[in-house]
Amino acid sequence: MVDFNYYAPTEVVFGKDSEEQVAALVKKYGGSKVLVHYGGKSAIKSGLLEKIERLLKDGGVEYVTLGGVVPNPRLSKVHEGIELCRKEKVDFILAVGGGSVIDSSKAIAYGVPYDGDVWDVYMHRYTPVECLPVASVLTIPAAGSEMSESSVITNEDGDVKIGYSNNISRPKFAIMNPERTYTLPAYQTAAGITDIMMHTMERYFSHDEDMNITDAIAEGLLKTMIDVAPQVLKDPENYRFRAQVMWAGSLAHNDLTGCGRVGDWATHQLEHELSGMFDVTHGAGLAAVWPSWARYVMDCGVQRFVRFAVNVMGVENDFTDPQGTAIRGIEAMERFYHSIGMPINIHELIGREINDAEIKEMVRKCSHDGKDTQGQFKVLAPADMEAIYKLAK
Amino acid sequence: MVDFNYYAPTEVVFGKDSEEQVAALVKKYGGSKVLVHYGGKSAIKSGLLEKIERLLKDGGVEYVTLGGVVPNPRLSKVHEGIELCRKEKVDFILAVGGGSVIDSSKAIAYGVPYDGDVWDVYMHRYTPVECLPVASVLTIPAAGSEMSESSVITNEDGDVKIGYSNNISRPKFAIMNPERTYTLPAYQTAAGITDIMMHTMERYFSHDEDMNITDAIAEGLLKTMIDVAPQVLKDPENYRFRAQVMWAGSLAHNDLTGCGRVGDWATHQLEHELSGMFDVTHGAGLAAVWPSWARYVMDCGVQRFVRFAVNVMGVENDFTDPQGTAIRGIEAMERFYHSIGMPINIHELIGREINDAEIKEMVRKCSHDGKDTQGQFKVLAPADMEAIYKLAK
Repeated sequence: MVDFNYYAPTEVVFGKDSEEQVAALVKKYGGSKVLVHYGGKSAIKSGLLEKIERLLKDGGVEYVTLGGVVPNPRLSKVHEGIELCRKEKVDFILAVGGGSVIDSSKAIAYGVPYDGDVWDVYMHRYTPVECLPVASVLTIPAAGSEMSESSVITNEDGDVKIGYSNNISRPKFAIMNPERTYTLPAYQTAAGITDIMMHTMERYFSHDEDMNITDAIAEGLLKTMIDVAPQVLKDPENYRFRAQVMWAGSLAHNDLTGCGRVGDWATHQLEHELSGMFDVTHGAGLAAVWPSWARYVMDCGVQRFVRFAVNVMGVENDFTDPQGTAIRGIEAMERFYHSIGMPINIHELIGREINDAEIKEMVRKCSHDGKDTQGQFKVLAPADMEAIYKLAK
Repeated sequence: MVDFNYYAPTEVVFGKDSEEQVAALVKKYGGSKVLVHYGGKSAIKSGLLEKIERLLKDGGVEYVTLGGVVPNPRLSKVHEGIELCRKEKVDFILAVGGGSVIDSSKAIAYGVPYDGDVWDVYMHRYTPVECLPVASVLTIPAAGSEMSESSVITNEDGDVKIGYSNNISRPKFAIMNPERTYTLPAYQTAAGITDIMMHTMERYFSHDEDMNITDAIAEGLLKTMIDVAPQVLKDPENYRFRAQVMWAGSLAHNDLTGCGRVGDWATHQLEHELSGMFDVTHGAGLAAVWPSWARYVMDCGVQRFVRFAVNVMGVENDFTDPQGTAIRGIEAMERFYHSIGMPINIHELIGREINDAEIKEMVRKCSHDGKDTQGQFKVLAPADMEAIYKLAK
């Protein structure tokens, strides 16, 4: 068991009409001039953006707005946000959207009080000690950024997608109304659930196997998602199903499911290169990579994969054949991915096989020019990354 | 499903030697003059108190000490603490101990900036809007006060034991070193586990049955405790077992296991009168009451008790006989209590049956002179409280 810090200070306000509290919450956490940061059409079309603006106005909170954040959020938009915040003397950033908008907001929050280029933060050339307060009105359960300390930004100059984590960016509050996710398309819903599960699985596949309570919570979360996923796809306006997914998204990435262990995170790193290169939905990319990662690394800790197969996927344990049980767990996960419309390899993800040059380029970026490894369950050298991309192609 | 707020801002620092960080943490959260508040001999005998004092001194943090907090902590000690804090201009309270010490610290924290008697807070005659910051070095996993917003104080003047909850008192940090619990006697360990499980069960027995993810987490926590309890009693210096119990204690009472539902809490209320009158260990008192509460209320929602029997206690589900399955779940819990040395009724708890006059007096207090009900799963009128005490005697 590894020592751990658990710090999840975000105030979650969960329920119908929870957005009604937005102005009071902004003021409670010290905001007087807000950047309302959002993505594209859906926040406008649904009327949510208009409602938030009206609530802030009625609550006596000044604001400016900035839309246009895209999935795999871009550094250029972050720069635009920083400039706007400085010009308008913004002291609080309210993200209205999902992980991309919240991640972009965190990057802006780091950048405003920093004299240099905020990309320095993501390149670990500068460690921020302060940032603007960030909070969210969540509309897409997936990334878990609403309670997390992490954000991922893509620098278009070279298609580099890099994550950065710092507790100072943990959001002050998160307003979560499951009704706001009713209109999320099936593919985005399924990709979100895949991302939520993967945040848990990255922490679950670990050689620190002595924190049973963390395992029990992780398994409970994963089984709940497996149970709820087909139901929410069939019945997208069911409050109960949407609520499970929304709350699971936060719990999966606020560190609760990782207490006492070192996570793996190789699947995330391998996927970041995929979505960096092909601009695919992050969750779908994870589903395309994980089965190949799992088959490639399972011999490093087969009993962990047996536990996953039996306790999460409901596979019968063949005590005479741990490898076989482990494989059947991976196959059950592939069937689950397919059942919710997710790919299980890269050609299902992007419609064609990737070629050797593309693999080489992704390995180069994922290993930072051959200098770094990825993962913990099995530490992946560049040759391992190449082998997994080839298995997955 | 009910709307909920989830707010658990306490920074948990968990692991071996975690107390080494105490001075830095106090400073991080604004403390410059600390009241080190503790209970009795064990903090002194173990050397922990001396270590904390040395660490504060070495870290340049001034402090004063106040010991002598007893289980079911007394209002008189709270008054003493308030006076000392004012005299010494204390700006931070560090509890070194378990729930009683932390609860007493929270009461002192409310009292210092308040002109009137702090008992007003517990009697709901005054709602504090500020309090001194509180934190803990935890030595007894049980009450969960290290992450919670609640505290329970006993007013010796009339033996009234009353709880009060307010988010402003959520501790700033909690230092948790499982090694510090190695010397906890078996009875205290078992009573602590019972309290931890009961904090989960009070939230689990609810008619809001549509938040599966909360149920899955609660069931995982309860099963982990059932698995670990006999092992930790056999092997009290096992880090792994002690760590499960310690972390479960915080998770069971930081509201995680109650998200989306209204809890019951009748067993806690019935027990508060028991420990108020007989000064018994809270956890043991809970074990003495719960089986009778469960039998008395189960017909209000028998399928919930069936789920508990099957998913938590591992009872085979007899689909033709829900009542029978539910009863076997309660019986399995009684066997578990006995297996860890806990009582299952009041005469096992205090060595004799309670008499009608004592029952009458406890019912009077528990119902606030017949004016209030208790519980939610079944709302208990005074006659119901009397019936449960009689079943349990």
